[in-house]
Amino acid sequence: MSGAVADALAAQSDAVRARLEALIRLPSVSTDPAYEPGMRATRAYLLDWFREMGLQEVQELDGGGHPALYGSWSGAPGKPTLLIYGHYDVQPPDPLEEWISPPFEPTERDGCLFGRGASDDKGSSVIAIAAVEAWLRQPGGCPVNVKLFLEGEEEVGSPTLPAIVARYGALLRADAMLSADGGRASATIPTINVGARGNTGFEVKLTTAAKDLHSGKYGGAVRNALHEMAKLVASLHDAEGRIAVAGYLDSVAPPGNQARHDTAAFAVDEAAFCAEVGAAPLGEPGYTLRERLTLRPSIDVNGMWGGYTGVGAKTVIPREARAKLTMRLVAGQDPAQARALVQAHLQAQCPPGVRLEFSTQGGGSPASSLPLGHPLVRAGSTVLERLLGQRPVPVRLAATVPITALFKRLLGIETLMFAFGLPDEDVHAPNEFFRLSSIPLGLRAWVMLLEELGRVDPAAFHGADAAP
Amino acid sequence: MSGAVADALAAQSDAVRARLEALIRLPSVSTDPAYEPGMRATRAYLLDWFREMGLQEVQELDGGGHPALYGSWSGAPGKPTLLIYGHYDVQPPDPLEEWISPPFEPTERDGCLFGRGASDDKGSSVIAIAAVEAWLRQPGGCPVNVKLFLEGEEEVGSPTLPAIVARYGALLRADAMLSADGGRASATIPTINVGARGNTGFEVKLTTAAKDLHSGKYGGAVRNALHEMAKLVASLHDAEGRIAVAGYLDSVAPPGNQARHDTAAFAVDEAAFCAEVGAAPLGEPGYTLRERLTLRPSIDVNGMWGGYTGVGAKTVIPREARAKLTMRLVAGQDPAQARALVQAHLQAQCPPGVRLEFSTQGGGSPASSLPLGHPLVRAGSTVLERLLGQRPVPVRLAATVPITALFKRLLGIETLMFAFGLPDEDVHAPNEFFRLSSIPLGLRAWVMLLEELGRVDPAAFHGADAAP
Repeated sequence: MSGAVADALAAQSDAVRARLEALIRLPSVSTDPAYEPGMRATRAYLLDWFREMGLQEVQELDGGGHPALYGSWSGAPGKPTLLIYGHYDVQPPDPLEEWISPPFEPTERDGCLFGRGASDDKGSSVIAIAAVEAWLRQPGGCPVNVKLFLEGEEEVGSPTLPAIVARYGALLRADAMLSADGGRASATIPTINVGARGNTGFEVKLTTAAKDLHSGKYGGAVRNALHEMAKLVASLHDAEGRIAVAGYLDSVAPPGNQARHDTAAFAVDEAAFCAEVGAAPLGEPGYTLRERLTLRPSIDVNGMWGGYTGVGAKTVIPREARAKLTMRLVAGQDPAQARALVQAHLQAQCPPGVRLEFSTQGGGSPASSLPLGHPLVRAGSTVLERLLGQRPVPVRLAATVPITALFKRLLGIETLMFAFGLPDEDVHAPNEFFRLSSIPLGLRAWVMLLEELGRVDPAAFHGADAAP
Repeated sequence: MSGAVADALAAQSDAVRARLEALIRLPSVSTDPAYEPGMRATRAYLLDWFREMGLQEVQELDGGGHPALYGSWSGAPGKPTLLIYGHYDVQPPDPLEEWISPPFEPTERDGCLFGRGASDDKGSSVIAIAAVEAWLRQPGGCPVNVKLFLEGEEEVGSPTLPAIVARYGALLRADAMLSADGGRASATIPTINVGARGNTGFEVKLTTAAKDLHSGKYGGAVRNALHEMAKLVASLHDAEGRIAVAGYLDSVAPPGNQARHDTAAFAVDEAAFCAEVGAAPLGEPGYTLRERLTLRPSIDVNGMWGGYTGVGAKTVIPREARAKLTMRLVAGQDPAQARALVQAHLQAQCPPGVRLEFSTQGGGSPASSLPLGHPLVRAGSTVLERLLGQRPVPVRLAATVPITALFKRLLGIETLMFAFGLPDEDVHAPNEFFRLSSIPLGLRAWVMLLEELGRVDPAAFHGADAAP
């Protein structure tokens, strides 16, 4: 890092904290129309900042919901263009009475800044913006071209994000995306994210009769929809927790040595992991907990219902049962094919006279994966090793990051998640906080990352090494 | 039957029809407070009739809800005392728009009288009362002592009936009960009811974790409450439909030759039985449909639920699942023991870390059974054979008749169901009707039944033959 930028950063840490505090004070709860003034004020604040730091094309991108915010700088011809993603909206503060200090009044305790959105995602978003600003204040400007893109609907499932990306595709064109959302996996072990599981799902309706029947007239004579649904759900896994759907694992390659090695380097204590939430462990034999969570697919029934669910008893033989299923997918699995295999399994288990109907809302996302040789991974790893003295462990998320799949599909670009929140920072809960020490660390890391990426040939983001 | 009574009956059929029409015009819907005036008018009408025909102790029996109606006649010293049960309340008429003629305006079509309560249970109740009246108009009075007891809450689950029976036990003391509720099993085959299955049930709550977990963080690592509940429910039966609960059938004797013979005499076409309600057949192999329905126990899950059941998807691993179970019981099964066996089975199937909690509302009823030699069965069979030219087939109900168990438990008496409704008369549905031909048949049968029972030594109702 150039000495001038390092000096600038040292001076900027306090300014960044001030920016973060100002943003926490603006209540940008996207799910509740009562917070519309806070949403508007937050947008105004950020757009002013964008203009002030010298971005061009500063504007709101409207997809019919809460608009996204945009600003670009293209003063580095021949250099890569990076789309930088964050979001300005936050979760509701409820339950209010559990907050120790008011949710929209940033408060420092024990080296942490408490407030709604501090960690998710105002802290990391402010860091990313400030890193760009630090470079733009230098005589040569930024080592890469940048396009800042802050979403306003992340906390409500990004309903209009596809419309925004489709509508403003030309503005958003880039060689790769850096995400300021997502956070670090550990406070002690440096990690770099190289992928996430995909997901898909469907709902199934099972019918056994034309109407609900009285057990005093039919009990012992006819099929019961709840018994049939129970048998189907029980058939999805074997007794040890292996997925028992025919063909489901055929397209999934066994984890390679590198993946198992990387996973082992970031070990999780299974007993402690389960005990923390009072859960009983169960999963595919032959894999460690972390391998099951990141390298292997899963199937979960998320909801199941049928028959009489009110107070007291009702002697009914229900005609209909329903279940919602979702799957976490890994490399090699196509969402539509995964759904089809599970549905074919259920259909094959289904006895004559029992009818199944499937419905799907949205097609889901495949798993995402960055090869270790991808320029985003190389650059991110180099920066973190230089800052933390240790090569970061490549980790994969058990969860799904829909924006990664969306930008890949619509814009053809890969995403590196490079955020500085930590797993214990109570996001979506009362007393959310962000570690103040993450501000100087994150700033340095982002400044260095932009510098590293400035050394990459833009074509390399789209080349052979970059193919997942 | 004495000639005088026969003559009286021939004249009375029209009067009975007029009584039934008058009662249908009084809307006695017990579940809806808006019908309170109709309930009051119905009670007034019936109590007037009781007094008019010469009953004593005519009164309302109040248990805190809709009162029951009572009147007695004890002019046959040394003869048996029969409690005669019926109910004066009816189901709501909804959906109103499906009625061809107004529900509370009795209307004749094709030899049937249409109107709410025509079949359930005003038709059979009026017949029973009129038979007593016919005898009381004779010089010698009735061949037995009678106590008429008309309930006002049958259609809402008899909430205060136990209180009424407990409170007015002295008034209700009798040698046996005749029920004008229950109906005939077939329009073509004469049958006499000799028993009914019992029932009991419980609710089970299954817990796998301290909170709902995110499948993007835990999917593939922990037990899912819905999967565990599905496995438990699936384990209740084997693949062919046999109950798979250890010990559950140990106390159930295999049906004897007589029972199988009687059951076969009243055969049911299984394919037609299921096709009528679009159901798929399933049940214990080795038994006919009617044997499964009346001589074998059953277990049904009546409701099952857990997790997210709203619109769209939610990637949650639910911590909690619930199910409601009821069982139909046969001779040899004790409700509490049956519950305990099923609960022990579920507990035994339950893996470590999965917790079950059971709750029971009401203890249930054992199966009821009248031996073929019981004076009630002998008298009823004699009457029906004489009237219909064919010995009636002893049949058992697949359903449960809680009043039978209640009067047995609280008053120590057996019940013969002797009613004249038929299964196709759309009780609880729009366009309920009662066959007008059932009025003269039912009147004759009731008059003859009271005469037959007058020949029985009261002690015989409580003797060895009477033991189930």
